[in-house]
Amino acid sequence: MKPFTFHNPTKIVFGEGTVSKVGEEARAAGRKALFVYGQASLKKSGLYDRIVAALRAAGVEWVEHPGVRPNPVVSHARQGAALAKAQRVDFILAVGGGSVIDASKGIAAGAACDTDLWRFYDGTATIGAALPLVTVLTLPATGTEMNGGTVLTDETTQEKIGFGDPHLFPRCSILDPAVTVSVPAAQTAYGTVDAMSHLLEGYFTHDGGWVPLQERYAEGVIRSLMEATERILADPKDLEARATHMWGATLAWNTLAPCGLGGFTIPNHMLEHPLSAVHDIAHGAGLAVVLPAWMATTAGRGPARAARIARFARGVLGVTAPDDAAAAAEGAARLKAWFAKIGAPTSMAAAGIASPDLERLADLAVKLTKRWGIADHARGDILAVYRACGPG
Amino acid sequence: MKPFTFHNPTKIVFGEGTVSKVGEEARAAGRKALFVYGQASLKKSGLYDRIVAALRAAGVEWVEHPGVRPNPVVSHARQGAALAKAQRVDFILAVGGGSVIDASKGIAAGAACDTDLWRFYDGTATIGAALPLVTVLTLPATGTEMNGGTVLTDETTQEKIGFGDPHLFPRCSILDPAVTVSVPAAQTAYGTVDAMSHLLEGYFTHDGGWVPLQERYAEGVIRSLMEATERILADPKDLEARATHMWGATLAWNTLAPCGLGGFTIPNHMLEHPLSAVHDIAHGAGLAVVLPAWMATTAGRGPARAARIARFARGVLGVTAPDDAAAAAEGAARLKAWFAKIGAPTSMAAAGIASPDLERLADLAVKLTKRWGIADHARGDILAVYRACGPG
Repeated sequence: MKPFTFHNPTKIVFGEGTVSKVGEEARAAGRKALFVYGQASLKKSGLYDRIVAALRAAGVEWVEHPGVRPNPVVSHARQGAALAKAQRVDFILAVGGGSVIDASKGIAAGAACDTDLWRFYDGTATIGAALPLVTVLTLPATGTEMNGGTVLTDETTQEKIGFGDPHLFPRCSILDPAVTVSVPAAQTAYGTVDAMSHLLEGYFTHDGGWVPLQERYAEGVIRSLMEATERILADPKDLEARATHMWGATLAWNTLAPCGLGGFTIPNHMLEHPLSAVHDIAHGAGLAVVLPAWMATTAGRGPARAARIARFARGVLGVTAPDDAAAAAEGAARLKAWFAKIGAPTSMAAAGIASPDLERLADLAVKLTKRWGIADHARGDILAVYRACGPG
Repeated sequence: MKPFTFHNPTKIVFGEGTVSKVGEEARAAGRKALFVYGQASLKKSGLYDRIVAALRAAGVEWVEHPGVRPNPVVSHARQGAALAKAQRVDFILAVGGGSVIDASKGIAAGAACDTDLWRFYDGTATIGAALPLVTVLTLPATGTEMNGGTVLTDETTQEKIGFGDPHLFPRCSILDPAVTVSVPAAQTAYGTVDAMSHLLEGYFTHDGGWVPLQERYAEGVIRSLMEATERILADPKDLEARATHMWGATLAWNTLAPCGLGGFTIPNHMLEHPLSAVHDIAHGAGLAVVLPAWMATTAGRGPARAARIARFARGVLGVTAPDDAAAAAEGAARLKAWFAKIGAPTSMAAAGIASPDLERLADLAVKLTKRWGIADHARGDILAVYRACGPG
């Protein structure tokens, strides 16, 4: 284990029916909210009506800032920050998935200062304060409901940048699994893949030495997410499974899992990023393509890497091969088969990428190796993984 | 899973050498501390000198309140609260094990009001505020460094009462595994037993339905604690093992494990309490006596109870028996053997209780069943467990 600091002040209010508590939790954060959400689905599902009824009952005023898109953009967040300032709101209320909450974090930071909020993303300014943030999560996947991270895209430059800051932990996040019963099968599966990848990057690449607590934590959350996903796909209204899926995705990336792991890298995110940036596929879909290919390729890159992947293969996927390289390879194949079973794409072709330009994807990934400090992935290694993602 | 609220604002600063950060963490809490500690061992080990040097370097003043005993008493806490008020300290700095931190929580609450602090323990008053608390943990066991719980004893009435309050979460806890290399083998083992029992009470008795995340979390932490304990007993200076032991004990009772479990009871604590109260043995030693006996006895009390114990036996202790009752019984025997292996007592005789008055112990336990709401343990069930703890 390596030294770490852990400090996660987010209050979680979890359980079926907890959406009804949004009024009191909002009121604890202030008298007037900027209510941020995405598309019309919030109104169609009836959730919008329940939220505004709860706000009214609690005596909370609000101004609305709808229209957050998947892969949220900075221009929309800037408008939200300006509106929050003009309307002198006390806090931000985010109701939606990772995109809505991430955008709301940018708004919360931008509304509390005179700095353009993109400067927090491009690293030319540091957050000194942010408005309190209350969230109601509708799509388990990214973990943003219980961490200080946010990702926005500057659509004028196509730059997509993520960062984290202690000011951006939500004050309170309401996790009501009943809200997620309408999440479609594909989004449920992509959320699972996303959450699994959050745990696996550190599991596969850490330099923390002996970390049995951390390995078992990751294995336990992943196995539970896999079981919950299978139950949900069989019965989308299975509330027990929805609850485990929701809490599992939060536990996957709430800053606890990496405690003690020391340094780690995120090669699968590095490999996925060009796929979704160039071909506009869902992040979870891209990860489902990349992860088994990375495992299969990396299993052949030395015994230390193979041992990590083999441990996962044996502990989570039931592989019994005694040889690490063989076990790792079999684990990659089994994970690929499982992704296919839950309806996630496992090749570029299956993800709808008909004619990928692997050289261009590799160029983009190489840039990320530098930005993200992934020194052990040369261009050849990257191309090898992309080639293992199947023909275009 | 059942609904829950999770809110743990304690900042953890973990790692070898982090004791040196006590100055800056203390300074963030205020200018003047009440420095609470226990016995002379703090000075012998050199830790006292390191703490005061760090406080001096950070410009933090302090007043000392040493002398916290194992099983800390309310009179000493009252003196501490009076001293904190008279000296107008800004915060409490607790350096020690669970007793020192628990006593400091009582002091932190008592120093912030005009109410006698025992009233928070006996339930006749509620905490409205508490001074900030910074801790440096020296003995991994109770988890108090990252929760809002505290236990004190009123030595005039022999009442020992524990309770929890959100105001009592430490502001910051420094967990430096290097500090624990001097913890003797017996205390290390008792800490392991204590931490395991914290996880197992909910694991065995919850009413949360399908809780795979929670079961695997408990199993993972327990297996890691067991491995770390064996390494420490083989080499007390094994810092990797000390780190896992320390973080594992914190993770065992930092309010995360019960999330989603719904209601659960604490029969093993109920059974242990009379042992340590009447015979003045260590809490961890008493739990080591009681836990395998409770498992063996409870395995025969119906298939639902046997299934829980069998799951633990298979998942953690390597039992393979297909029948639940048989697996549970074998699990109890294996756990008992493992406790003996790490030097914990596994019978009343081994714990130094030569002639236990089982009827009297049962009388005391029955009282606790009422106070703690443990409705499924009648006097006969309790006596059966005590009899299974071996002859006196």
